[in-house]
Amino acid sequence: MSTPLQFDLIGTDARTRARLGRVTTRHGCFDTPAFMPVGTQGTVKGVLPDHIAATGSQIILANTYHLMLRPGSKVVAELGDLHKFMAWPGPILTDSGGFQVFSLADINRIDDDGLTFRSHIDGSVVQLTPKLSMQVQNDLGADIIMAFDECADPRKPVEYQQQAVDRTLRWAEQCIASHARPNDQSLFGIVQGGTCESLRLSCVEKLIGLDFPGYAIGGLAVGEGFEAMTRVLSYTAPALPERKPRYLMGVGFPRDIIAAVREGVDMFDCVMPTRNGRNAYAFTASGPIRLRNSRFGNDSQPVESGCDCYSCRTFTRGAIRHFFLAGEMLGPILLSLHNIRFYQRLMVDVRRAIAEGRFDDFAATDPRASLAAAAEAEPQDVQDT
Amino acid sequence: MSTPLQFDLIGTDARTRARLGRVTTRHGCFDTPAFMPVGTQGTVKGVLPDHIAATGSQIILANTYHLMLRPGSKVVAELGDLHKFMAWPGPILTDSGGFQVFSLADINRIDDDGLTFRSHIDGSVVQLTPKLSMQVQNDLGADIIMAFDECADPRKPVEYQQQAVDRTLRWAEQCIASHARPNDQSLFGIVQGGTCESLRLSCVEKLIGLDFPGYAIGGLAVGEGFEAMTRVLSYTAPALPERKPRYLMGVGFPRDIIAAVREGVDMFDCVMPTRNGRNAYAFTASGPIRLRNSRFGNDSQPVESGCDCYSCRTFTRGAIRHFFLAGEMLGPILLSLHNIRFYQRLMVDVRRAIAEGRFDDFAATDPRASLAAAAEAEPQDVQDT
Repeated sequence: MSTPLQFDLIGTDARTRARLGRVTTRHGCFDTPAFMPVGTQGTVKGVLPDHIAATGSQIILANTYHLMLRPGSKVVAELGDLHKFMAWPGPILTDSGGFQVFSLADINRIDDDGLTFRSHIDGSVVQLTPKLSMQVQNDLGADIIMAFDECADPRKPVEYQQQAVDRTLRWAEQCIASHARPNDQSLFGIVQGGTCESLRLSCVEKLIGLDFPGYAIGGLAVGEGFEAMTRVLSYTAPALPERKPRYLMGVGFPRDIIAAVREGVDMFDCVMPTRNGRNAYAFTASGPIRLRNSRFGNDSQPVESGCDCYSCRTFTRGAIRHFFLAGEMLGPILLSLHNIRFYQRLMVDVRRAIAEGRFDDFAATDPRASLAAAAEAEPQDVQDT
Repeated sequence: MSTPLQFDLIGTDARTRARLGRVTTRHGCFDTPAFMPVGTQGTVKGVLPDHIAATGSQIILANTYHLMLRPGSKVVAELGDLHKFMAWPGPILTDSGGFQVFSLADINRIDDDGLTFRSHIDGSVVQLTPKLSMQVQNDLGADIIMAFDECADPRKPVEYQQQAVDRTLRWAEQCIASHARPNDQSLFGIVQGGTCESLRLSCVEKLIGLDFPGYAIGGLAVGEGFEAMTRVLSYTAPALPERKPRYLMGVGFPRDIIAAVREGVDMFDCVMPTRNGRNAYAFTASGPIRLRNSRFGNDSQPVESGCDCYSCRTFTRGAIRHFFLAGEMLGPILLSLHNIRFYQRLMVDVRRAIAEGRFDDFAATDPRASLAAAAEAEPQDVQDT
């Protein structure tokens, strides 16, 4: 392989824009549409790598913001890069760090140079720039790295969105110029533009001119709502190059993933399986269940009948409820595992439906296609937003 | 197999009293001398059963006191007994609950009937009697269950020790009378008597008259010191029946285990591998290390060179240190795993040394034989005392 990323488009659905593909990196390949569990601080919280692999996950995501602040990207590099650090020999993607600054840090300034903020760990002032984001991501050594962008608040006026797009495009060029390991790591560009079609399309056009090996769609699932998100995807995704992977950042509920696959998106990540799992919230095809509920006290069924995950093969609902009430780590561990497997089984079924030319029917009839916002557990942990 | 426990004495060391054996239960067998990890509330904290099995553990222990209060032994029975509840298909031992009442609960009264205390969970008043301890342990369904005894404070005068022994013996008879599943579960008697040789020996003699399938030595490692403990073992263990297993409760450091094996003890349990692991404390043959120490920040070695555990095969010291500092569950999980494997590798080497007739030399020269009290981490978690 001469380039660090190869995307094979295996097939497209006849009645929708859904695509079946495979991405090959220097650390192995993953099938698309793909779901990436989130390993914020260098671990998928509570789940050892052998169990993550057993969920069918083929690529995981780590957060540049967190690792930059602690333990520091140089430390990760000295320990042999993120693959060794996380003990994940397969593909890894890192984000640019920008989104976490917006959501977690005390921001002092956004300007054309970057973001200046106070660390949520020690209060120190840090300026994150396109160049620094690239340096950090080069140190971490993920297979896919993300351009540093501005994810503008969707409630801001279109003039601000325009300014954020302009900044995102300038930063994209700076990222390309700063990227020191183009033979090892594939840098994806990020489309911004809020819910404005012309802004989105002009952003896409200019990013295509920069010839990234893959493209992400950012600034969605940040409060604009499902209809608006789907509308943006309906014109943004098809405008992206057919022969390159498309990644919808931070999404989402099963309903959202299925809707985005329909528009031609290939890659997803979301903290919901793990965060909800830590809060005793289990995804099932017939709707979510909250394992702290007393009705599960002597329930000898698995979390989800028919699920093949380690938790469902091994433990009863009653035991898992007890683990949560007793404050035992096994509660969060077991539901994180189940929820990741739930997502990966969904992706397997999505890919199979596309392969068999029946994705439209699948999306219309599968009960998981309606699992949405009501399914979100209360966020009790902001660490992996 | 006609009885629920069979003990095969495979060999005895020529120069010490060390014994090599095998215990067979209705849920499989374990080699002795054996170390049992502690699964207080129905889980070995943070470690999934497949990883516990991979440490070489063949039998685990669970605490009657905790499970009786939450979720309740009837709930465990409804869910299919402790093997199903904990997802541990192999041998399990439960204690009587008495020791945890002494160490965790607010005791209102000790009398000839039993212990009256306030639950540490909801403040309710509970009276634990020999009969109730048996009922609870019968519900839980462990392979080996323990008689309800009084573990007297070793600082109390000999008159009190005598009274506690008398009570322990009366309660032992009551336990035999109440034990409802003698064909499934093996009830062990417990020797008390503090550090008084005549009391210990008379207690042994009377327990032998009750013909238990195995015997535990209680009331040690409760503050009397290493020399006193070894002295008590030197006359108590050899007085027990040769063809039945001997269990030293709640012990201990590698040094203590090796010293007890020398006196002819076959079974051990201790929370140290897991509790210390949760506090970033790792056992190694060359002495303990504390993974929060900054010197491990960019240390790319495994926790212990030459260790074959999942943690050491998979993660660097630097990454594990980061997980502790970042509050990630993987820190406690990985060191619990390593420490359990450390103990099980010790037991493998102990058994091999006995089999090869060189236990005396092993005990004199192996560096682990000196790992003792200085190795204890600060207890930050009283849940599994």
